[in-house]
Amino acid sequence: MSSAETAAPAIILVTPQMGENIGAAARAMLNCGISDLRLVAPRDGWPNIKAERAAVGALEMMPPVKVFDTTAEAIADLTHVYATTARDRRMVKPIVTARHAAQEARARVAGGGRVGFLFGPERTGLLNDDLSLADTLLTVPLNPAFTSLNLGQAVLLVGYEWYQAGDATPGSVLEMNGSVPASKDQLVNFFAHFERELDACGFLRNEEARPHMVRNLRNMWQRANLTEQEIRTLHGVVKELATLRQARKSAAESDR
Amino acid sequence: MSSAETAAPAIILVTPQMGENIGAAARAMLNCGISDLRLVAPRDGWPNIKAERAAVGALEMMPPVKVFDTTAEAIADLTHVYATTARDRRMVKPIVTARHAAQEARARVAGGGRVGFLFGPERTGLLNDDLSLADTLLTVPLNPAFTSLNLGQAVLLVGYEWYQAGDATPGSVLEMNGSVPASKDQLVNFFAHFERELDACGFLRNEEARPHMVRNLRNMWQRANLTEQEIRTLHGVVKELATLRQARKSAAESDR
Repeated sequence: MSSAETAAPAIILVTPQMGENIGAAARAMLNCGISDLRLVAPRDGWPNIKAERAAVGALEMMPPVKVFDTTAEAIADLTHVYATTARDRRMVKPIVTARHAAQEARARVAGGGRVGFLFGPERTGLLNDDLSLADTLLTVPLNPAFTSLNLGQAVLLVGYEWYQAGDATPGSVLEMNGSVPASKDQLVNFFAHFERELDACGFLRNEEARPHMVRNLRNMWQRANLTEQEIRTLHGVVKELATLRQARKSAAESDR
Repeated sequence: MSSAETAAPAIILVTPQMGENIGAAARAMLNCGISDLRLVAPRDGWPNIKAERAAVGALEMMPPVKVFDTTAEAIADLTHVYATTARDRRMVKPIVTARHAAQEARARVAGGGRVGFLFGPERTGLLNDDLSLADTLLTVPLNPAFTSLNLGQAVLLVGYEWYQAGDATPGSVLEMNGSVPASKDQLVNFFAHFERELDACGFLRNEEARPHMVRNLRNMWQRANLTEQEIRTLHGVVKELATLRQARKSAAESDR
């Protein structure tokens, strides 16, 4: 376990009912690089064979789950606690989105804080007494006409935001898989070959429209982000199509 | 169904194996305001009772699921297709995160495009022939040591990002629940009362430290974002504590 992982937040499930949900939460946590799972008075005790099955190996890869009698004990070592809640709880308390919480939590951890996320039992959610032990309420913005999320999914979304807040994957890259992007002179050489054959076959015969059509075709090839190999393939395609055209033309002439 | 919902993306599950996963995908979609579910050659046919159970009512709230024989038919009406994939597929293709895809997809839909997200079967993921029908690959950045996500969770994360990209919930607000924030004159009046009693009891007797201590205490109250009602409560608390102190002091003096 790296220090980055040990600094990750605690996930605290308060009086969880179903083992399957505890296991799904553990799996979702490990997906998101979080491994500090704490249970407050789980209904069916601990360990729980249904949780182990649903975790598909995640529990074995995490430190032992800690079990507590009360929420206060489960959060005793933490410095900032977010309480997940779907409903308006008639409390004067800051309420944040999962995304905001994740960014804030990363900053707190970087500053030496120890952060936890509280999740209530499946049907009822957290009790108001538990909420009063938390600094901040957290809700996940979802379709208000259908907010039914199970415990594992709720943990996944909170954990996902935590992971994204510390992840540097670029939003978009062109995956090259060992191919080499074509240089602009290779591309321009292909343009010349392509346009020469289009002139030869008469496709660009309209002199007025020609500059515009050439630019559009060039832009189309530019958008394709061609590789060196693809440029070679396209030279071959154009050559073979032109040869086919010549052969058909010759055949048509000899038929006359 | 609003026009915003009909403009939402299509989710296409290619040869899904387990009904439970189709149902979990439908539930996750509706959580995220997406209702166009398409299946390509589902193993157990359609409809599927296990899918209906796992959807916990979501399928009844969505238009009928469309079933196709091939991926090409399932995406025929779309203009941009993202293919979800966990592995490096040895293709030269743009690869984006779920977050980037969601923002880009919102822009495409706003420009009149019709967007879909392809998901492969549980064990194998999408085939390379399916990937070659897609514009863009999509991966969800997750803990590389444990990326095992089930189909419903993958759909949830992609749908979640779609929903967030169109959601205007402020990252952080102080939920007031009908309470009125205290005005600064109410707060300063409380400071005066509090500091007067602290002077009276001797807590601020160190003249040199006094300005610093007063500022710290004021900052602590500022951070609490007090309401009008809480200011009234705190006046009462300070008054009663001061009265108790006087009573104890008198009792102690008469005991001498």
